[in-house]
Amino acid sequence: MVTRLSSFFVRTLREDPAGAEVASHKLLIRAGYIRPQAAGIFAWLPLGLRVKARIETVVREEMAAAGAQEVHFPALMPREAYEATGRWEEYGDLLFRLNDRKGGDYLLAPTHEEAFTLLVKDLYSSYKDLPVTLYQIQDKYRDEARPRAGLLRGREFTMKDAYSFDYTDAGLDASYQAQRDAYERIFQRLGLEYAIVQADAGAMGGSKSEEFLHPTPVGEDTFVRSDGGYAANVEAFQTIAPAPIPFEGLPTPVIFDSPNTPTIDTLVAHTNAVLDTTERAYTAADTLKNVVLALTHLDGTRELVVVGIPGDRDVDDKRAEVAFAPAEVAPATPEDFEKHPLLVKGYIGPWSEEGAILGEESATGIRYLLDPRVVEGTAWITGANIDQKHVHSLVAGRDFDADGFVEIATVRGGDPAPDGSGPVHLARGMEIGHVFQLGRKYAEALGLKVLDENGKLVTVTMGSYGIGVTRILAIIAELNNDEKGLIWPESVAPFDVQVVATGRDEAAFALAADVSAQLDASGLDVLYDDRPKVSPGVKFGDAELIGVPWIVIVGRGAADGEVELWERRTGERTTLSAGDAVARLARR
Amino acid sequence: MVTRLSSFFVRTLREDPAGAEVASHKLLIRAGYIRPQAAGIFAWLPLGLRVKARIETVVREEMAAAGAQEVHFPALMPREAYEATGRWEEYGDLLFRLNDRKGGDYLLAPTHEEAFTLLVKDLYSSYKDLPVTLYQIQDKYRDEARPRAGLLRGREFTMKDAYSFDYTDAGLDASYQAQRDAYERIFQRLGLEYAIVQADAGAMGGSKSEEFLHPTPVGEDTFVRSDGGYAANVEAFQTIAPAPIPFEGLPTPVIFDSPNTPTIDTLVAHTNAVLDTTERAYTAADTLKNVVLALTHLDGTRELVVVGIPGDRDVDDKRAEVAFAPAEVAPATPEDFEKHPLLVKGYIGPWSEEGAILGEESATGIRYLLDPRVVEGTAWITGANIDQKHVHSLVAGRDFDADGFVEIATVRGGDPAPDGSGPVHLARGMEIGHVFQLGRKYAEALGLKVLDENGKLVTVTMGSYGIGVTRILAIIAELNNDEKGLIWPESVAPFDVQVVATGRDEAAFALAADVSAQLDASGLDVLYDDRPKVSPGVKFGDAELIGVPWIVIVGRGAADGEVELWERRTGERTTLSAGDAVARLARR
Repeated sequence: MVTRLSSFFVRTLREDPAGAEVASHKLLIRAGYIRPQAAGIFAWLPLGLRVKARIETVVREEMAAAGAQEVHFPALMPREAYEATGRWEEYGDLLFRLNDRKGGDYLLAPTHEEAFTLLVKDLYSSYKDLPVTLYQIQDKYRDEARPRAGLLRGREFTMKDAYSFDYTDAGLDASYQAQRDAYERIFQRLGLEYAIVQADAGAMGGSKSEEFLHPTPVGEDTFVRSDGGYAANVEAFQTIAPAPIPFEGLPTPVIFDSPNTPTIDTLVAHTNAVLDTTERAYTAADTLKNVVLALTHLDGTRELVVVGIPGDRDVDDKRAEVAFAPAEVAPATPEDFEKHPLLVKGYIGPWSEEGAILGEESATGIRYLLDPRVVEGTAWITGANIDQKHVHSLVAGRDFDADGFVEIATVRGGDPAPDGSGPVHLARGMEIGHVFQLGRKYAEALGLKVLDENGKLVTVTMGSYGIGVTRILAIIAELNNDEKGLIWPESVAPFDVQVVATGRDEAAFALAADVSAQLDASGLDVLYDDRPKVSPGVKFGDAELIGVPWIVIVGRGAADGEVELWERRTGERTTLSAGDAVARLARR
Repeated sequence: MVTRLSSFFVRTLREDPAGAEVASHKLLIRAGYIRPQAAGIFAWLPLGLRVKARIETVVREEMAAAGAQEVHFPALMPREAYEATGRWEEYGDLLFRLNDRKGGDYLLAPTHEEAFTLLVKDLYSSYKDLPVTLYQIQDKYRDEARPRAGLLRGREFTMKDAYSFDYTDAGLDASYQAQRDAYERIFQRLGLEYAIVQADAGAMGGSKSEEFLHPTPVGEDTFVRSDGGYAANVEAFQTIAPAPIPFEGLPTPVIFDSPNTPTIDTLVAHTNAVLDTTERAYTAADTLKNVVLALTHLDGTRELVVVGIPGDRDVDDKRAEVAFAPAEVAPATPEDFEKHPLLVKGYIGPWSEEGAILGEESATGIRYLLDPRVVEGTAWITGANIDQKHVHSLVAGRDFDADGFVEIATVRGGDPAPDGSGPVHLARGMEIGHVFQLGRKYAEALGLKVLDENGKLVTVTMGSYGIGVTRILAIIAELNNDEKGLIWPESVAPFDVQVVATGRDEAAFALAADVSAQLDASGLDVLYDDRPKVSPGVKFGDAELIGVPWIVIVGRGAADGEVELWERRTGERTTLSAGDAVARLARR
């Protein structure tokens, strides 16, 4: 059926909507795809719904090809299962919570791990039932503090979430791989370039985790990759510890006066002024910066830790968050320093002549952790734990020890990839998918066990696989537009072709209707701009804004049976006979 | 793609689920279509999702054929628009309300009139834009006090809700008719017998309202219909007032002692004992019962009204609710009678020798209303407003008047249809759809106006059209089952055919796989029961429970290329060659 624009529920807007900053947000509203209802909550108009349906079809087909079966959970879920896994609390303000008329606690589900786990527990009991992978395409809710960028970070969004269930680790690996392969096919079909990057799995209790990122300079996620094929997001990047250096022949530590040098910059300048720089000048990389962090553990207790990192690096908040999860991390407060007078702000070190105040025998009782680069035999300029004094030639493993290593320092371009594939580059990307080996965390919390071949109860191991359908739609819009409007890839366009009748000549409208009918008969989805008394300029502007990939203009040449075929992406226009235009489009 | 039962996510249950009372609820759970998550909230398993998708496809196709365009609103909606129309309050406990992290008021929408009105207001401004009919298929929420009967009255349910927008009454009539016609086509395609009954439109402020009811003795709604084609639900039934009777020659009223006759039964017995019954005995139909009701108006004020109805009828609560809407109706309390000593309980009448204490000049200040049957010239036995006394030969219009007429009496089989099409029969049915001329109520409340041909702003007039998708699924299940399980109509069955391989003979499994593949190649949806080591009895039982309309049994005759074709509904089994079975099913 040909859709006629004269009665189609769409109105294009000339002005950018207030508060919209990114292109996809502006254009999807201006071109009549979505309408805002509340912060981060949108209604879908016919155009938007068509694009969404096409993306969902691609996802459904590839899920079926991967052997996943579709189910559907309600958005409104009772509290109990989320309580059992701790997420009722953990989600904090992100969770929409509500009561029913009897006072029962409910939530609008932000994700459904618990529900799927309980469903499989409900119906399955034997290893023979496994493996199974279930999925749904469903509207989810997150009460984001700052919903923004339209569909890119909304409070209601459509997700495809899949969950795999196996009773062996090898089985989980296979289920994981099947979803990973399906994701590759999905993004290929959607024309979305992607990088598969290692992601941190620790916080969720899982064992393996990869993100599909679309590389783009405007992406909100930072990741690293090497020319040799390594890719990881910065949270998951692992630093290679250098080889230890023998202590033999290393100079002994010397405390020196360093007035007014509480920062690395002032310390480096002072050091170069007072020490012998005939062999080389000192840089920030020669210093060891000791950062005091306050951890809040899940049980509410607060703990200070000191982390020594090379002075040329800063703390990366995301890496610190992951490193200390599930505890929350914050910088130490002035009150913390007051309570611990041995922490001499600006002059903290791992060791002093007065005794080991930090390290294994620490008099402070505070854990001391080190960046992996601070290996045995490396010598450092660092604080002497005495106001206005530092120490140099302080050697790790000889002059001080630590309670462990931790990765919280920034990653830099040029850092070596952990797999030996060369130095990494920093890049930015947008997350478009996530595959995740959850392992047994949810199955354990909710008691999902099956009998194995020997009649023994074993805990099931799970994977979780998500694609944000509405997010992907927004990303495609974000990547495919120009100053005139949207430019949809053919795989997800709301229509295959838009026919535009121009002028007042009835012959043009008759030919346009005929061309539309022929294109429709060839199996193409056709939007026919049949509006009378609308100027060609307005019609062309609307067509460019809406962004259907092919436009057929029927106007002046109609009397001779000629039309113009206009490719939205290139702007190229070709005059040809109506029949040839139909044939060319039908062949595509 | 053939779906293999060995890996299909379904487990049939032998036991009825606890608390399930109706067949559809029991069977949809036992056969693995849905799983309960909370009271009135269900998850959809692959089988259930398939049936639901088929119903949705029928609805979508007929909506498109009726020119309606699909959009999609979020379930989570801000309070404001519902506040503007008064429904934030009116819905009472039925509404799931919640706050976001900033304290903003939200609801889970039970219906979307407000949102659609605002959307059209947002984008349209001229009569040229109209008419337009928009719809969505969406999950809705109602916090029912007693969710029951599974999907028939759930707290989350899927609805198709459509809304039409016109600027003239004739336009609304046409839009309404287009939806009404679409509903007829939908129910015909779904094989659901229906009656279109007049429904009351007053409470919603609309002008015309019809319900589609499926007639069934187990239906929860009562309606009436005449052989001449009239049909209405009891709330909408209108009584024909009989012709008035001339006063000439009518006897004058007489008060008589009637000790201990506060009820109609005791009054009739007493009347027949003390009055002259040579011409005829008196019945309850000769008495006028005066019922005292307490109305609570929207502004919170409370008002007593007295309604006189023939003594052979009772008050129908639903009719009373509709008659007095939007006020709430309840029986008067003992306190009400204490406050009004002129209301002599058991002996209330419209008139007494002491003066007109009720009626236009009522000393009580209470409104007195009459059943439409109490026309001028009818004579009644009724209370004398004096304890232990009644009056007879009291003539309406001569001896007493009223403040108006009101329809709150029960409707009975045999009552004349208001359109003159003969006496009505009472019947029961289940609501399967509702078409409704809302008129200008929502457009007025939310300011939806367009410029008409003369450049004048006119308020838009709307229709609202609902079909409960999940409710219809349950009704189809309720109507199509036997003691063995479900029996799906072909139009909505989860699969077209189920192939069952029996025995341990590999040839049977090979033939069954081949038959499945051929059926699949013919465009049929095939469920293949390929489970090894499961007895034929269990397989047949599962097939009967699941209810796919056609079953192909491949077993003993496999070596000779023979199969059995089993029609689930009739139980008829025919032995034929595999090729013939495929051909017969493919032809259907």
